[in-house]
Amino acid sequence: MNPATASLPPPLHGIDTVAIVGCGVVGCGWIPVFTGAGCQVRLYDLDSRRLAVAQQRLAQLGALIPSPDGRRGSVTLHTDLASAVAGAGYIQESVGEDLRAKQALFKELDALADPRAYLASSTSSLDINAIASQVTRPHRCFTAHPFNPAAVVPVVEILGTTRSRPEDLAGITAFLRRTGQMPIVLGRFVPGYVGNRLQAAIMREALSLVVEGITDADGIDAVVSHALALRWVPLGVFGTNHTNDENGLRGYYGRFWQSYRGLMDTLANTAPNLDTPDIESIAATVERRFESASVAQVSRWRDEFVQELRRLQMREPFRP
Amino acid sequence: MNPATASLPPPLHGIDTVAIVGCGVVGCGWIPVFTGAGCQVRLYDLDSRRLAVAQQRLAQLGALIPSPDGRRGSVTLHTDLASAVAGAGYIQESVGEDLRAKQALFKELDALADPRAYLASSTSSLDINAIASQVTRPHRCFTAHPFNPAAVVPVVEILGTTRSRPEDLAGITAFLRRTGQMPIVLGRFVPGYVGNRLQAAIMREALSLVVEGITDADGIDAVVSHALALRWVPLGVFGTNHTNDENGLRGYYGRFWQSYRGLMDTLANTAPNLDTPDIESIAATVERRFESASVAQVSRWRDEFVQELRRLQMREPFRP
Repeated sequence: MNPATASLPPPLHGIDTVAIVGCGVVGCGWIPVFTGAGCQVRLYDLDSRRLAVAQQRLAQLGALIPSPDGRRGSVTLHTDLASAVAGAGYIQESVGEDLRAKQALFKELDALADPRAYLASSTSSLDINAIASQVTRPHRCFTAHPFNPAAVVPVVEILGTTRSRPEDLAGITAFLRRTGQMPIVLGRFVPGYVGNRLQAAIMREALSLVVEGITDADGIDAVVSHALALRWVPLGVFGTNHTNDENGLRGYYGRFWQSYRGLMDTLANTAPNLDTPDIESIAATVERRFESASVAQVSRWRDEFVQELRRLQMREPFRP
Repeated sequence: MNPATASLPPPLHGIDTVAIVGCGVVGCGWIPVFTGAGCQVRLYDLDSRRLAVAQQRLAQLGALIPSPDGRRGSVTLHTDLASAVAGAGYIQESVGEDLRAKQALFKELDALADPRAYLASSTSSLDINAIASQVTRPHRCFTAHPFNPAAVVPVVEILGTTRSRPEDLAGITAFLRRTGQMPIVLGRFVPGYVGNRLQAAIMREALSLVVEGITDADGIDAVVSHALALRWVPLGVFGTNHTNDENGLRGYYGRFWQSYRGLMDTLANTAPNLDTPDIESIAATVERRFESASVAQVSRWRDEFVQELRRLQMREPFRP
């Protein structure tokens, strides 16, 4: 243990106030997670116009989150960082992916916040050790990378700094679990963490297949929606492997690993060069599928659909 | 149009008898697709013991498929190819992935089957043009690659030969649609077609993350089951891109394509070297998750879960 952190107080458990720093799509996506768990939320942004836009969205976002005990936290808006973080036990930074900006912000948060507060970053492209390189309490700094929108997609990828102690990790994951999220603790930094890497891997191949004319965006999405993801929702990737052979995953890899290796060697290994017409064509295909509905309409349908999927996951867990 | 095929009769429409050639996991997976649509199914295998095993599974598999009009086709077992294919309008070859074996089989089927019959292969690793290189009716030969199990995962990847005419393609896709499947016609051959390539792309990255200690099989599957696939079931990959920016897919690629390119350049580009201990460790993690239940138990749960997902997809289509 680092002597500088050994004498610090233990993690805070009963967090009832949360500050969200930055109110873009990601920051706003966090709001109903915390209000739904009964926390008071302070929403901070330098830009008061962005805060005003965020306020308009709150009713719509908040309506998606059932509050088990009927409590729902309120949201206050702040353009002053000190007032936003005063008394907050958990601070979720969600500004743009700019290392220097995040470093400066973490330094400021470190000075302003309760010494027991968790300082979490929504980043998935930057290493929390670099973001927290100028703070006095690096053990309290974490990545907590959400998926969009956080309130309906429960996974949060967690990565502590090299100074984070087991009790810090236990505290932040317990808090996030209490809000209904599903924290997944990663072993070390890798760009994109797990989720965006897996997404980038499938996108790289999907885009290559489209650019090479094997199929179009509708063909890709039909194969994903009506084949691959149908198995991935109950089983994930390795669970699917397990049920694809009568002898389970060992049997599957025993029989098919050599052919999979061969197939993997034929996959796209670089991002395709996407010209503007390629993107236009993919966008037009997707828009046609949704009959030119607004992105907000499609997103609302997605959120309701994902919530049905989660109810199904909770109602029908595997029982041997 | 090829003069050799121009004078042939038009595609057969009212197919009521189907032959399945090869009764492994894939061949048997096809049975309830066709019986559920009221077809008489002839199941052929050289090995009468495999046929006997297949027969035992039929009740269980068949029970999964609702027959809308209460009709359900029967299954007869054959070790004589000529009797299996006599009068069949559609023949689904599902033997092992061996080009010479499939070529020889297609040549034999070409000689034995009704000249109007479709000859479909379940292959995803071999080109149908190579498989059908020795037949007199290449325009009637197709890949019809299913996902496991075909009766609950509806996508079938379709690829004709270079001789297939639009009416041949229209006929086979109409027939498969009538059985409740979702045929996706591909532009040309690529190893693994679309589905197995996308699956291999995500597996390659997932395995690398596990082997490098970023997370384990449970971590990967949690991110897939409780984040990525939750969005992919309603939206697919490109539809998800579309809802990740207020300005839709154009806005998303405009803002994030350069960072995605950068991230894609860091992804695994070769299959990891999987030692036996790696596979053992992944298998043990997955088995622990399912509390050492049998693969058959997990598969039954998967099938029920996937059917719930399909009902949800049919009940809640996007409406603007």
